[in-house]
Amino acid sequence: MKYCSQCGGVLGLKIPVDDNRPRHVCDVCDTIHYQNPKIVAGCIPVWENQVLLCKRAIEPRHGFWTLPAGYMELGETTSEAALRETLEEANARVELQGLYAMMNLPHVSQVYMIFRSKLLDLDFSPGAESLEVKLYKEEDIPWGELAFATIRHTLRLFFEDHQSQDYRLHIGDIVKDGEGFGFINSP
Amino acid sequence: MKYCSQCGGVLGLKIPVDDNRPRHVCDVCDTIHYQNPKIVAGCIPVWENQVLLCKRAIEPRHGFWTLPAGYMELGETTSEAALRETLEEANARVELQGLYAMMNLPHVSQVYMIFRSKLLDLDFSPGAESLEVKLYKEEDIPWGELAFATIRHTLRLFFEDHQSQDYRLHIGDIVKDGEGFGFINSP
Repeated sequence: MKYCSQCGGVLGLKIPVDDNRPRHVCDVCDTIHYQNPKIVAGCIPVWENQVLLCKRAIEPRHGFWTLPAGYMELGETTSEAALRETLEEANARVELQGLYAMMNLPHVSQVYMIFRSKLLDLDFSPGAESLEVKLYKEEDIPWGELAFATIRHTLRLFFEDHQSQDYRLHIGDIVKDGEGFGFINSP
Repeated sequence: MKYCSQCGGVLGLKIPVDDNRPRHVCDVCDTIHYQNPKIVAGCIPVWENQVLLCKRAIEPRHGFWTLPAGYMELGETTSEAALRETLEEANARVELQGLYAMMNLPHVSQVYMIFRSKLLDLDFSPGAESLEVKLYKEEDIPWGELAFATIRHTLRLFFEDHQSQDYRLHIGDIVKDGEGFGFINSP
């Protein structure tokens, strides 16, 4: 961030009055340009004992498998964002069944919100950001080819809860853990 | 948003390839400037049968009462943001006791996340953004002088649950409802 999006002036890093951290502030018009975390919303589309995964056609993690999810847009609710992403990435219609996981990813300034959902029909197909969409049973999940730690932890928790049909909301943080990223449950 | 924050070039509204909505795109360097909803994180600081409210020293809603809450910052978790806001606005230390409310505010592109918490001591005082901080019993809450609909609904739900000591997580949307804003619970 180098130029002011309001007036085109040059930005400097300054701590504004009554603030306590450096912000990008315009040298000309004094506009303060805040930056904040983003929400990634999506869902677990379930059909009997299977979940719908999408093979990514875009970077990052091109060719790896993910749940339908993406950045929430202005003017949306989190549920609307999850439904839209599922339609865009998998051309799939689902009925949401409640928030299932909320994971903080402070290292990339994201909050991931995933809903449990019931796939309404089998008329799905790859959207523009997917190479392939496919239903997977637990034993067939491509654990080594999943795109993100959030997806791995969400699927692991989902299949654990699925055994008992007791679906809890899982809230916590994705944190660096040796080579990979672990999930630490919040109290 | 008129100028590119990367190169200072003029921005135009265009629908990028493989996208489906207009974005601010730089005519010079082609950078796409996405805008996304923000998270407001905070908490309900509880001491026996009282909750701590802050009288706002800033706009919007200067002079009205609120719970300590504010925009989540880059690099934070939602819990860290709630603890920081409580310290900044009320110089108060709390122990978080789980997420209590998640409210979508699509009309202002915000998602509000509030934690239940235990106030650890009575050594609180107004921070830079507060005129006054004060503990209120349910019967003394200044219902007509609350800053936002989110605060009103959160306090109403909290005192309902407080009767039975059965604190559920409340998820839903704040929606226009005649003159004011109602809270619609999500399934």
